[in-house]
Amino acid sequence: MLHLGFTLLLALALGASLGAAFPHDALKKSCSLSKYQFLVPHELKAVQKMKEQFEDIMLLSDRKCNTRLFHRKWNIAELSVPDRVMLVEAELDLATAMLMLPADPAFSKTRQQPLTFLTQAREDLRGCVATEAPSHQPSGKLRHWLQKLQMAKKTETTGCLEASAILHLFQMLNDLRCAALREQCT
Amino acid sequence: MLHLGFTLLLALALGASLGAAFPHDALKKSCSLSKYQFLVPHELKAVQKMKEQFEDIMLLSDRKCNTRLFHRKWNIAELSVPDRVMLVEAELDLATAMLMLPADPAFSKTRQQPLTFLTQAREDLRGCVATEAPSHQPSGKLRHWLQKLQMAKKTETTGCLEASAILHLFQMLNDLRCAALREQCT
Repeated sequence: MLHLGFTLLLALALGASLGAAFPHDALKKSCSLSKYQFLVPHELKAVQKMKEQFEDIMLLSDRKCNTRLFHRKWNIAELSVPDRVMLVEAELDLATAMLMLPADPAFSKTRQQPLTFLTQAREDLRGCVATEAPSHQPSGKLRHWLQKLQMAKKTETTGCLEASAILHLFQMLNDLRCAALREQCT
Repeated sequence: MLHLGFTLLLALALGASLGAAFPHDALKKSCSLSKYQFLVPHELKAVQKMKEQFEDIMLLSDRKCNTRLFHRKWNIAELSVPDRVMLVEAELDLATAMLMLPADPAFSKTRQQPLTFLTQAREDLRGCVATEAPSHQPSGKLRHWLQKLQMAKKTETTGCLEASAILHLFQMLNDLRCAALREQCT
């Protein structure tokens, strides 16, 4: 028993050092979203703080959109688990890109923690797509939504995309949680 | 003692029936903001729901502002109690006016509860100004802020004013709470 425990520890330690020594993508072969089932209060607080700061300055720029980017007539729980993962990955792709746009120093500082969190979540989602459903085809309703998003990325202004993404961050976090809960999200 | 209690009850009952019989403004002679010291969760939830619904549709209209209407470099706790009451009254004046603009049926329904609550709070604040400090002169920093707000009302678009007011409703509710807490808000 003691021997088994030691082997396990050794394997974990080896895994950790291998993780440090090898390129990141080469090791991205696991899917674990369980940590997103219950979002940590300090991460939610950081997102809330950033959203409030953004709301304070967002009206100084032109933000008009032609469409409601995050609008959908269905609930994420209606999607299959691989569909949900794909949906959230697309949402976080946009969110992280928007949180890397040039910004004033105060906002740049505030967004750092949410950006780190969302980037990690996006990586974890990518890991899941790669390991669990590498050739998954989205359902009709998800495909339609993804096409709408792709079109918006090309036709809407950066001001619109940025505001849409930041104003809908809590919707994305709810979606992330639902994806992480798998069959338990109903 | 019993007699005093009876007289008090009679006075309260008389007050209540007079309140029903006489015009509203003629009786607006009391100041009680204590009920705003701790905001009721279902009122906060209704405001949150309305804000989210507004964020969903706001980007479809032009909302650009030239100034940050609710920006200030000081904290409300730095103001005297009559100054705070005056500040929140001005904020709620704008908020209630903006929540009465024409809107789509879904948003009209959602905003009803917050509008009722904010209108009542504004009336209560007016009662306080009338009874406690009818000839109060605002301090320099408040006067400057009020002038900025008045100017914005004339120069900014309705789209900007509406978005500014709704995005800052929780700031207003915090200000209302601080005014209600009087010397305990520090």
